[in-house]
Amino acid sequence: MLNHIIIEGVTPSVDCGNYPAKRIAGELCVVEADIFRDGVAELGAVVKWRRRQDKRFQESPMWPLGEDRWRGEFPLEENTRYLFTVEAWSKAFASWRDYFRKKAETRLEVASNLEEGIMLLERVKKRARGQNRQTLASYLERLRSLPDPHLAVDVVFEPALEAAVDSAEERLGAVSYSPVLEVIADRPRARYGAWYEMFPRSQGSCPGKHATLREAEMRLPEIRDMGFDVVYLVPIHPIGHTNRKGPNNALTASSESPGSPWAIGSAAGGHMAIEPALGTLADFDHFVQTAERLGLEVALDFAIQCSPDHPWVTEHPQWFEHRPDGTIKYAENPPKQYQDIYPVNFDTPDQKNLMEELKRIVMFWIGHGVKIFRVDNPHTKPVAFWHWLINEVQARHPEVIFLSEAFTRPIMMKALAKAGFTQSYTYFTWRNTKWELTEYLSELSRPPVSDYFRPNFFTNTPDILPPILQQGGRPAFKMRLVLAATLSPSYGIYSGYELCENDAVAGTEEYANSEKYEIKARDWNRPGNIKEFIARVNRIRNDNPALHELTNLRFLDTDNDMIMLYAKSTADLANVILVAVNLDPFHPHHCTAFVPSEVVGVSPGQRYRVADLLTGASYEWSVRNYIRLDPRIEPAHILRVESRL
Amino acid sequence: MLNHIIIEGVTPSVDCGNYPAKRIAGELCVVEADIFRDGVAELGAVVKWRRRQDKRFQESPMWPLGEDRWRGEFPLEENTRYLFTVEAWSKAFASWRDYFRKKAETRLEVASNLEEGIMLLERVKKRARGQNRQTLASYLERLRSLPDPHLAVDVVFEPALEAAVDSAEERLGAVSYSPVLEVIADRPRARYGAWYEMFPRSQGSCPGKHATLREAEMRLPEIRDMGFDVVYLVPIHPIGHTNRKGPNNALTASSESPGSPWAIGSAAGGHMAIEPALGTLADFDHFVQTAERLGLEVALDFAIQCSPDHPWVTEHPQWFEHRPDGTIKYAENPPKQYQDIYPVNFDTPDQKNLMEELKRIVMFWIGHGVKIFRVDNPHTKPVAFWHWLINEVQARHPEVIFLSEAFTRPIMMKALAKAGFTQSYTYFTWRNTKWELTEYLSELSRPPVSDYFRPNFFTNTPDILPPILQQGGRPAFKMRLVLAATLSPSYGIYSGYELCENDAVAGTEEYANSEKYEIKARDWNRPGNIKEFIARVNRIRNDNPALHELTNLRFLDTDNDMIMLYAKSTADLANVILVAVNLDPFHPHHCTAFVPSEVVGVSPGQRYRVADLLTGASYEWSVRNYIRLDPRIEPAHILRVESRL
Repeated sequence: MLNHIIIEGVTPSVDCGNYPAKRIAGELCVVEADIFRDGVAELGAVVKWRRRQDKRFQESPMWPLGEDRWRGEFPLEENTRYLFTVEAWSKAFASWRDYFRKKAETRLEVASNLEEGIMLLERVKKRARGQNRQTLASYLERLRSLPDPHLAVDVVFEPALEAAVDSAEERLGAVSYSPVLEVIADRPRARYGAWYEMFPRSQGSCPGKHATLREAEMRLPEIRDMGFDVVYLVPIHPIGHTNRKGPNNALTASSESPGSPWAIGSAAGGHMAIEPALGTLADFDHFVQTAERLGLEVALDFAIQCSPDHPWVTEHPQWFEHRPDGTIKYAENPPKQYQDIYPVNFDTPDQKNLMEELKRIVMFWIGHGVKIFRVDNPHTKPVAFWHWLINEVQARHPEVIFLSEAFTRPIMMKALAKAGFTQSYTYFTWRNTKWELTEYLSELSRPPVSDYFRPNFFTNTPDILPPILQQGGRPAFKMRLVLAATLSPSYGIYSGYELCENDAVAGTEEYANSEKYEIKARDWNRPGNIKEFIARVNRIRNDNPALHELTNLRFLDTDNDMIMLYAKSTADLANVILVAVNLDPFHPHHCTAFVPSEVVGVSPGQRYRVADLLTGASYEWSVRNYIRLDPRIEPAHILRVESRL
Repeated sequence: MLNHIIIEGVTPSVDCGNYPAKRIAGELCVVEADIFRDGVAELGAVVKWRRRQDKRFQESPMWPLGEDRWRGEFPLEENTRYLFTVEAWSKAFASWRDYFRKKAETRLEVASNLEEGIMLLERVKKRARGQNRQTLASYLERLRSLPDPHLAVDVVFEPALEAAVDSAEERLGAVSYSPVLEVIADRPRARYGAWYEMFPRSQGSCPGKHATLREAEMRLPEIRDMGFDVVYLVPIHPIGHTNRKGPNNALTASSESPGSPWAIGSAAGGHMAIEPALGTLADFDHFVQTAERLGLEVALDFAIQCSPDHPWVTEHPQWFEHRPDGTIKYAENPPKQYQDIYPVNFDTPDQKNLMEELKRIVMFWIGHGVKIFRVDNPHTKPVAFWHWLINEVQARHPEVIFLSEAFTRPIMMKALAKAGFTQSYTYFTWRNTKWELTEYLSELSRPPVSDYFRPNFFTNTPDILPPILQQGGRPAFKMRLVLAATLSPSYGIYSGYELCENDAVAGTEEYANSEKYEIKARDWNRPGNIKEFIARVNRIRNDNPALHELTNLRFLDTDNDMIMLYAKSTADLANVILVAVNLDPFHPHHCTAFVPSEVVGVSPGQRYRVADLLTGASYEWSVRNYIRLDPRIEPAHILRVESRL
C-alpha cells in the first residue's frame, strides 16, 4: 500500500545523517521534523530514541509548531551515543472527530457520521486493556444513547475519551524516518573549558635546565588559581637524537639542545614512554593525580610521527615510506625540511597493525588517567582513520575528548569534526576586525556547523604569535583573551601569554627563540603580567552559565567598527551577559551601543542595571547606551544584567 | 585500506539525492563537488554520467575552482532521465612532479627524488598502449640521460608527457560519490511557455448555448495570435447528472444547467470519454491536430474524482469509501459540500488496480496526442502515487509534462514537485507588494527550490480572481500580466483575463456567475480588452531568451516601494532585459532605479541605450535612472539593453 505520510527535514542531522550531531549529556536533544500527508487528517508523531548499545527504542511525544513543522525532545541522560528517528501516523479517531465537529456545526444530518465514529471506537476498544477498555465501553454506551447525534460533539472531545483512545488506537499508516540518526552526548568539558598549554621541561626556575614532571607539577596550583580547567602538555615522550634541531630550528644541535618534543622516540622508547629527562611514568601518574586533586584535567598531545630513533623504525620499517635507495623519507614540505621527523605511511600494506598500534597508544594513556587528547596535524592522516579511531575509543570510553589541531582549508577542518573530533582549533588567531569576527562566529555558532564543529579558541600557540599580539602589547593580550574566553565556551592560551611575551622572528608568526627547540625558565610573576586579569575572566566564565554555550551568541550593533558588542544568555534570561570589546589596542574608542529589549528581557524602553564584572562598576542601560573603552585601562566590558528597573 | 579522498556537497542534488533535480534537454548539466584528501597530493576528478536506461557511465573532466570546490559538466542531449556521480583519485605522477619542482628549486640533492619519478613513469608505461607507450619510453630515456637531475624539472612538466601519463596512469585510491544522483532532462516547454486556460463549452457565440469542440477549435488562431503556446482545457469528459450543481454552485440545477466539468462521468463514459455535448473523440483528435498545426499544444485536466454517475461507481465500487449504511461518501470539506463528486479512496484493498486504471487514463490521452496534464488537487492523493505514476509515464514518454495544481501549505507543494511534477502552481496570485514578490521569487529562483520546483504563474484561475484584479481594473490586469510573464518563464491566464473580467462574488475570490456552473458566450473583441497588450508581451518573451529562464532573475533597487525593478539576462549578456513595474494600479509613481554596471555588462559609470519593448521608446541609462510609470498609460517598462555607449 502507498504511504500517505512524509517525514522530511529532521534535525539534528549532519550531512543527510552521514555523521553524528554533537550535544552535551544531561541536556535535552530537541528534534524537529516536517511531517505531513495528503488530504485532511490528524497526525500523531513521536521521537524514537535509544542508546546506541541498546536494542529497544523509547518514545517521546512530538507536537506541531505550525506549517507542518513538529518538535519533540528526548533526554541525553548519559555520556554515550544515541540513535533516534521520527515516527508518524494518522489518528483515525481524532481525524473523524474534527470532521464530525465541522459537519455538526453546519446542522446537516450527522447520524451516519456518528455511526462511523462509533465504529472507530469499537475497533479501538478491541485493542484496549483494563481501565481504558472500560472507559471506551462507557463512552460507546453514552454515544449510542444520545437523543440527538449533534450532541455527540461535546462528548467526543472529552479528555478522558481522548486519553483512552490514544492509549490503544492503532498507528494507522505509520511511517518512520530513514536513516536513523546519531547524536553524540559528550560530557560538558567537550563544550566548555579553559585550557593552558605548556612545555613541562620549561616549568623549572633554573635558566637552561631541563625541568622534570615533578617540577612542572609545582606549577599546577598557580594554573588552577588562574582559573584553568585543562593543562595541555606538548609531547612528553623520548626525543630523538638523530638530526635533532638546535635553537631557532637550526639544522645542527649542540649537545645541550633538548630537541623538539614532536620528534618522538629514542632508545628510551616511543609513544608509550616518557622522556627520561622529564622523569618516569610514575612521575606522570603523580602529575595526573595532583592535577585531578586540584580540579584540573591533563590533555596529552597525540602526534603520529617518529624521530629516526623511534623503536618502530627498526621494529616496523614497513610503516614508513622508503626512498628508492632504501632509506626512510623524512618529513618535508619544500622548502621546509624536517630532518628530525619520519612521517608514518598510512598506505602501508601493514595498515591494520599500524592502526591497532595507534589505538593501543591512546588506550595506554587513557589507562594512565588521560581523557583529553590534542591531536597534532590530523589533516595529514586519512580522515577515515580518525573516524575509526575515535569511534573505537569512545565506544569504550565515551568520556574521551579529541581536539583536532588542523590549520588547513575549511572543508578539511569540518570533515575532521564530522568524522568525530570533539573539538577543533579554528582561524580565531587570524580574525581581528569586527566584520571578520562577526562573520566567522556567525558561521560557527549556528547550524549546520554548530551541530558538529565545536571551536576551541586558542589565543596563541607555540607556532602562532599573531601580529596583533606582536604589535598591540599588553592591551592586545587582554583584548584577545576576552574575545576568546567570551565568544567561545572553550578557549586556551599557550604559556607565556600571561606574561605578554611577544618577541617574534621578524616577518613571521614564529616566536623568537622558540620553546620548541630550547628550554625556557620564566619569572611567572614578572611585572606587566596579566595573571590577575586572566583569573578574573575565568572566574566570570565559571560564574555565568551564559558563557558556557556557543549557539546563544548574538551580535549587537554599535556605531563604531572598533567596538564590537555581543550578548549571551541562558534560555530563561536568568543570566544575560553583554560583552563590549575595543578591537583597537592602541586608541580609546567610544560608541553608541544598541541593545534590543528582548535581548535582556525588558519591555521596550525599559531601563535596567548592568554590572561590569571586570571592574565592579555599575551602569544603567537601555536601548541606546554610551560606551567608552580605553585599552590602557580596560579593553572590554563584561556586563551582567543585574536588575530590570 | 582506508580511503584518502572525500567527496561531499555534490550538486545538483535534491534532499540528499532522494529526488531527481530538473534540467532542460539540450543544455549542459553543471556538476560541482567538494573534493579533498589528507596530506598534499594532486587530485583528478570526473563526472560519470549515463542515461538512466543505459548500463555504462561516460566521463567528463572536472576542474578545481579553488577552496576544494570542483566543477564539471555533461551534456543533457536527450529528453530523458540521467544518472551521475563524481569520481576522484590521487594523481601519483603529478603529485610527485609538484613536489619535485619545489624540492629542486631549493637546490637540495634531488637525484633520489628523480629516481622516484622515474619509477612512477615506468609503472605508467607498463599500462600504456601504442603511441602513449612510446612517448613514455622516450621521456624515460631523456630523464635517465640528464647530466644533472635538477634539469628534469623542465622535462617533467612538458604537456606531451602529461598527456601520455593521464592516458594510462592508474587512478590511485579512486573514490565514487554515493548515492548516484538523478537528473530529469525535460523538453524546453517544461520551463518556458505561455498558457491559455479555457472551458471549451464556453467558446461559442450564442449566449447560453453549449459550444462543441469544433466551435472551440475556431478560437485557436486567435489564441495563437495572442502568442500563447499551450491551450489548457478544463475537463472535457461526460458530466454527471446526479446532484448536478446549478449556477453559482446552487444545490439544485435546472435541466439546462451544464454542471461542473469536474463532476466527471455519466452513462456516456468516464475519464476516457468525451462529454457528448462537446462532440466525439474524433472531434478531440481534430482539435489537437489543428492546435498542433498552429504551433499550440493542448493540455488536459486530470482530475481523479467521479460524479455519482461515473461507470466506476458500479464497476469498481471498492474504489470508493462507503458510509456505514452502504452508500458512497461524496466529497466534503465542511462546511463545503460537493454532492456532485465522489472522491476516489486510495486506501482501497484494490489499490493496485486503481493505480493501473489511472495510469491507463493518462496513457489513453497520450495516445490521442496530449503531452501536458494539469493535475487537479494532487495534494489530496498520496504523494507516493504521483511519484509512481509520473515515473511510469515518463519512462515511456519523457516528453509528458505534469503541472501540479496544489494550493496548499508550502511543504506539500514542494513535496509534489520533488515527487516528479514538472511544473507547479504557486502563490503568485496572492503576492502583491514589492517585498512579497521579492521574497517569494528569491526563494523560487535559487537552489534548493529551483532545482526541483518550476513555477507556472497563473494570473487568475476559475477559482481565483484576486482582489488586486477586482479593484485595480485594466491597469491591474496589465501590471499583473507583465509580472507573471517576465518573472516566471511559464505563466498562464484563464480566459476572460484578456477582457479584464473582474466581477466577483462579494467578499470572495470567486467569479460571479462562474463559468464552472454555466455556459458563457463572450465578445472577445469587447472594448477595453488587452489582447494586443498580451500579444506584445508574449512576442517580447519569444524574442528574448533571457525571459526563458528563472534562475537568472536578479532584483535591483529603486527608492520607491511601489516600483519594482529586476533584470534577466543570458549568461553571455547578449540579451539583457530590465523590467520596471508600477505595482500600484491607481496612481502614477516615479523613482530612481539603480542598475549595477555588471548587470548590463558595462564598465562602472558607462552609459548604455535601452529600448522599451512595450512602447518603442528609447532611453539612455546608466547606474542611476529616473523612471515614471503612469498605470493609465503603461504600468511597466520592459527594457532591452540595445547598445553600450
